[in-house]
Amino acid sequence: MQNNSDNPVYTIGVDLGGTTTSFAIVDSLGNIIEKGLIPTRTDYVEQWADNLCAGIKNIIECSDIGDNIKGIGIGAPCANAYTGYIEAATDLPWKSPIPLASMIESRLGYRTVITNDANAAAIGEMAYGSAIGLKNFIVLTLGTGVGSGIVCDGHLLSGTRGFAGELGHMTFSFASDRECACGRKGCLQTVASAKGILETTRRFLQESDQPSSLRDIPPHELSPLAVQQAAVAGDKIAQDIYDFTGRCLGKAAAEFASITDPEAIILFGGVSKAGDLLLKPMKEAFSQSVLHLYRDTVKLSLSGLCDADAAILGAASLPYLD
Amino acid sequence: MQNNSDNPVYTIGVDLGGTTTSFAIVDSLGNIIEKGLIPTRTDYVEQWADNLCAGIKNIIECSDIGDNIKGIGIGAPCANAYTGYIEAATDLPWKSPIPLASMIESRLGYRTVITNDANAAAIGEMAYGSAIGLKNFIVLTLGTGVGSGIVCDGHLLSGTRGFAGELGHMTFSFASDRECACGRKGCLQTVASAKGILETTRRFLQESDQPSSLRDIPPHELSPLAVQQAAVAGDKIAQDIYDFTGRCLGKAAAEFASITDPEAIILFGGVSKAGDLLLKPMKEAFSQSVLHLYRDTVKLSLSGLCDADAAILGAASLPYLD
Repeated sequence: MQNNSDNPVYTIGVDLGGTTTSFAIVDSLGNIIEKGLIPTRTDYVEQWADNLCAGIKNIIECSDIGDNIKGIGIGAPCANAYTGYIEAATDLPWKSPIPLASMIESRLGYRTVITNDANAAAIGEMAYGSAIGLKNFIVLTLGTGVGSGIVCDGHLLSGTRGFAGELGHMTFSFASDRECACGRKGCLQTVASAKGILETTRRFLQESDQPSSLRDIPPHELSPLAVQQAAVAGDKIAQDIYDFTGRCLGKAAAEFASITDPEAIILFGGVSKAGDLLLKPMKEAFSQSVLHLYRDTVKLSLSGLCDADAAILGAASLPYLD
Repeated sequence: MQNNSDNPVYTIGVDLGGTTTSFAIVDSLGNIIEKGLIPTRTDYVEQWADNLCAGIKNIIECSDIGDNIKGIGIGAPCANAYTGYIEAATDLPWKSPIPLASMIESRLGYRTVITNDANAAAIGEMAYGSAIGLKNFIVLTLGTGVGSGIVCDGHLLSGTRGFAGELGHMTFSFASDRECACGRKGCLQTVASAKGILETTRRFLQESDQPSSLRDIPPHELSPLAVQQAAVAGDKIAQDIYDFTGRCLGKAAAEFASITDPEAIILFGGVSKAGDLLLKPMKEAFSQSVLHLYRDTVKLSLSGLCDADAAILGAASLPYLD
């Protein structure tokens, strides 16, 4: 991402989330120069686009970067890099399809490229994070759902219509009794997402009569973070929940290794903040499950991107790709 | 693969199989000009290489192609395109690793590239078969084992060490009680290979007391072809065996669709000769299992390459890739 000319080059990275939209000016080394935030929830998508563009103009004016802007990159759920549209996003307040790229491009005049949030994460890891210099890796984004970005032989896989890398919807026997929002059973995201961890918590508390601090938390206040904190404080059931989740991720990662012979599989997103609580059982299960060809060649690791800025940095690196 | 210059260009394709090695001169349109065959079984690999090179020289002399040879492509089990070596091939009579590419190049003076047999099949389908014009497809090779070649965004996936695409070793619950040669349980190839079909036959005959013509065949004479012929003749158990195998392939293909958003998944190799016996239940199970995103977008089909020449044609197209 380094810039060889005398004039520094900047991009705008936008992370369109279900609740808030974050955006920033980012330099070619991945430093955030100026940042902004708007709520995502508006009645009409045009209103949101107006707000975003006003916000971007504002941070450009507040900085002294002049007009050295290479383009805008947006990471968004169900964003299709080929068409520039958001397609069938269930987590956004507006009706799909949405011509996201052209809506922003026509308002600001900067070339705008979009991709789904998991692909943005993979590109961000490659540009500034745990995957610098790697040509073969998989990023698993563990958030509300589970997404993935697959880089193989130096290319981010897109597929026929831009829908490559839906590894969160690969099915596994460890989740065969869990229903997914997609209408099928057994998807990885029914276990390894935030929602999956809450479901595991509900089941583990119900199936055991062991004491647990988790029993004192009202159900609507339970979160993966609360379970994580309980585990760190020594709560056995909370530890078992992360152990189970990590082991499931390890078994899944063992299968994924057979697809692209990766150097690394990287965990990204809110649920991955549990760190070693998740990574240790994941590594154990991976070694036990994986085909011998890949046993000692795949590094399992956590995102190398700073928590809050990860998605923005991934999006900001999009304009450099073409 | 078409050649724009006035001089026609040819390549040599070599298919190194466990029993015999076939080779041919192939023109840029995929026509076989001249063909040869030697036994693979020799005490030393050098002896085999000498025989192969003598055979290749012989067919060059018998044809009138002059010296317009662009290179040699070899498809072989466990061949690594990056290193030019055969690594840990259990089906060959010689000790691995074998510096295959350099052994042939040094003897004949033509640039020699190698790849594993499943990748050769994928390249062959793209060059001359069912995948002409496709940029996203998966070839599943159903033979002694199950291999795969994955083409995504126009690239054949290689991975860190050339071991991408081991989809025959992805594990599934439908095979959870079957042991694979790799030491794990549940690999797709324990069901969808020739060996897998024989194991299914053994189980189905044991578990049922229905009459079946398969009971009259001595176990060592049973083959996927014999089961196929019995199914075509109306044998219910033989039909059930292919129905089961096809349904397993459909469930597996549904998972594979989530990886690369392919336009097609193509069956190649001996077991796929069962045609609709396999393809019909495969399509049904695929539609029932696949994520809605891919439901009507993936064509499941049989290899478009002529049976005996498929592997040679795939190998012959390798020299055009770089």
